[in-house]
Amino acid sequence: MSLANTPEPPYYSVIFSSVKNVESKEYDEMSNKMVELVKLQPGFLGFESAKDEIGITVSYWESLEAIQEWYKNIEHKEAQNMGKEHWYQSYNVRVAKVERAYSFNR
Amino acid sequence: MSLANTPEPPYYSVIFSSVKNVESKEYDEMSNKMVELVKLQPGFLGFESAKDEIGITVSYWESLEAIQEWYKNIEHKEAQNMGKEHWYQSYNVRVAKVERAYSFNR
Repeated sequence: MSLANTPEPPYYSVIFSSVKNVESKEYDEMSNKMVELVKLQPGFLGFESAKDEIGITVSYWESLEAIQEWYKNIEHKEAQNMGKEHWYQSYNVRVAKVERAYSFNR
Repeated sequence: MSLANTPEPPYYSVIFSSVKNVESKEYDEMSNKMVELVKLQPGFLGFESAKDEIGITVSYWESLEAIQEWYKNIEHKEAQNMGKEHWYQSYNVRVAKVERAYSFNR
């Protein structure tokens, strides 16, 4: 995992923070599959992800419409349902418009 | 670390994603100090943080003005300078307006 290179704002972000209910091989497989799938979505700009006690994944998007299309993706829907039924204890999803951004590189 | 309870949108978020240059006790001490300090800032709503290969900390704020005040805080400025001089290989800061949010709790 490295940092995402995103274009100049404005663009959109989805901040997904979660606490797991159980760890499972099925989750890891589904998670890897979603990463491959999301890269094919129109308007997807990249993502950043880290996990310790909680997990945080922030994905970046050209527009709200692009986010909506991804949430309607049938395989993604399936993953969301599995998440609620089995994997997550709790989560927050926040859709936020990136208005300013800056980077530092050594 | 648990998930942040935030009010109904709109509110603001600062998405800080980073790659460390070195690990150090000084960093951990400064980080703990910043957590204590930020909780005293007017308009601070909470934060979520996770770290593995990269670190992601998302803080939540009532307004852009509240974020600006925190960035001007003298001890926070000092921490930012130390971060650039010593601790970080690279980072992204993105300021984003949360427009929609929903939660799941088992």
